[in-house]
Amino acid sequence: MENRTEVNTLGEFGLIDHLLKNNDTKNSSTQLSAGDDGAVIDHFGRQTVVSTDLLLEGIHFDLSYTPLKHLGYKAVVVNLSDIYAMNATPTQITVSIGFSNRFSVEALEDFYAGIYAACEQYQVDLIGGDTTSSQKGFVISITAIGEVAPGNYVTRSGAKSGDLICVSGALGGAFLGLTILEREKKIFEETGAQPDLENQAYIVGRLLKPEARKDIVEYFAEAEIKPSSMMDISDGLSSDLMHICKQSNVGCVLYEDKLPLQDEAKEFAYKLQLDPTACALSGGEDYELLFTVSQGDYEKIKTNSAISIIGYITDAAEGKHLITRAGNKHELIAQGWNHHKK
Amino acid sequence: MENRTEVNTLGEFGLIDHLLKNNDTKNSSTQLSAGDDGAVIDHFGRQTVVSTDLLLEGIHFDLSYTPLKHLGYKAVVVNLSDIYAMNATPTQITVSIGFSNRFSVEALEDFYAGIYAACEQYQVDLIGGDTTSSQKGFVISITAIGEVAPGNYVTRSGAKSGDLICVSGALGGAFLGLTILEREKKIFEETGAQPDLENQAYIVGRLLKPEARKDIVEYFAEAEIKPSSMMDISDGLSSDLMHICKQSNVGCVLYEDKLPLQDEAKEFAYKLQLDPTACALSGGEDYELLFTVSQGDYEKIKTNSAISIIGYITDAAEGKHLITRAGNKHELIAQGWNHHKK
Repeated sequence: MENRTEVNTLGEFGLIDHLLKNNDTKNSSTQLSAGDDGAVIDHFGRQTVVSTDLLLEGIHFDLSYTPLKHLGYKAVVVNLSDIYAMNATPTQITVSIGFSNRFSVEALEDFYAGIYAACEQYQVDLIGGDTTSSQKGFVISITAIGEVAPGNYVTRSGAKSGDLICVSGALGGAFLGLTILEREKKIFEETGAQPDLENQAYIVGRLLKPEARKDIVEYFAEAEIKPSSMMDISDGLSSDLMHICKQSNVGCVLYEDKLPLQDEAKEFAYKLQLDPTACALSGGEDYELLFTVSQGDYEKIKTNSAISIIGYITDAAEGKHLITRAGNKHELIAQGWNHHKK
Repeated sequence: MENRTEVNTLGEFGLIDHLLKNNDTKNSSTQLSAGDDGAVIDHFGRQTVVSTDLLLEGIHFDLSYTPLKHLGYKAVVVNLSDIYAMNATPTQITVSIGFSNRFSVEALEDFYAGIYAACEQYQVDLIGGDTTSSQKGFVISITAIGEVAPGNYVTRSGAKSGDLICVSGALGGAFLGLTILEREKKIFEETGAQPDLENQAYIVGRLLKPEARKDIVEYFAEAEIKPSSMMDISDGLSSDLMHICKQSNVGCVLYEDKLPLQDEAKEFAYKLQLDPTACALSGGEDYELLFTVSQGDYEKIKTNSAISIIGYITDAAEGKHLITRAGNKHELIAQGWNHHKK
């Protein structure tokens, strides 16, 4: 970075004014935005959906290979993904940050550039937040607010035996992106060699610049589909599907050959001697939508090339299984990312 | 603490289930609570008010003299205070925490006991959040949501020349509570002497267990008062009044002899050779409401003994002043707590 302006030259309120100076309002529901004790939202007869995430440096992100602009973008996207996973439309966010004195005003500007880019992309308003110093590390807390027609939200608890299990996009890419970045970081630390990320744009992008599946939720509205259950994949397909099974009190069957994998990701997995299926089942942070629909929606789902049907819901007593390419039946095990078990 | 259960014996989801197992819903607007990607709120034609705070160990609180139960209670209260400061009624909160492995399940239970006590006291629902490990320190992020009749919210920007400046309760107590706790901590570290907090229950309580002024906002509704501007006092009276003046584009006159001080706080200030007026003007964290009303509301305000009229609003050109007991006029200076300037 060329310039470095110390945060204390602006003061807390000066910094907030500076970071919010180009903040514009996109939604008519935003009655009062940042700058007061609270923000005011009027959803005009729609229901309000709220989701929140806490992201900590060293736990959720590594600034040695995560540009701050990407981090800001991703921090918003992962929250919006939760709102879409409720079949709702995100409308507002609050962003709180804690940062040590190693952060300059320019660094925070980069972070907010990512925040604003995501607000623009998803047409949401930044309506408030909090800024504070931290003794160590960068702390991000984002709350996303959305709206949904009364009763039209989709929970994790409505899956029924016979429902089709569907997923958007491709799986495992973000995990492979993390794997290569961690590997290159280690090589750099040990040898000083510059990272070799050639041909890895797809998987690195999946980790550093994920998108939320706005298009899928819009397709549901257009095609008049209401999933019976839905969630976004943050911990990994198998771990997240377990939540749906538990909360819906059902079982499931997944087909290995139906799991959507992108070619570049698959090749890279083989190169690292990783099983692409394991990456798809257990890799987290893909932020794709995992949902179930009744069989009556089969034709509508089939026509959308962004959606894969990967299995079906069973009675709880039948358990949770994966049918392999060879036709063998394995018990499905949740092996998602678990920050507390590290 | 007698028992120590390691968090990793429960796992992330087990921990969340454990901490939320007695979580009950109090508001009919809470359609869907914790346990999904998001929570769903229906405010039935009312406007939604949102506020958020990020609290970091070592910056906002010191666990060496802050019991976790008190910390949980206070973390909620400071957010609800922001909602009341909008003339709204808090209805829901989300609570996110990050904690290192020095925290046991029992420690987190204590923290949540304080969260639930505050939810009970203020009749708000805990509807979601996030839990994560942290490398160091305890991180708390709370978002509070409230409701208000359309257009009935009060901002910082509506104060008009001639309006009365009012404040609830007494000022400076929390600052003095912090002062004594910091002093006793230092003595303990240097000499091992146990803290002497005798007769300091009031000021220590003001810091460790503040309350939000629900009663004042209820009085406004009952007496049909709509303040022209309002905010809660978190940084200190003079600093916070500056926000109202700036955002309303007005000036102000405060009277030193009108500033509400509690006797115990005043005595303790003298004991420490601190100026009680300076404590009232610059001490933060009192979480009282600072508001302005038109002169027509004078009779209604006067009858409420919890409210003091401390000055009046002027045109911006007249500046911001304090009239001392001796009748001298001093320029008012914002000397609030500023975490970034430490």
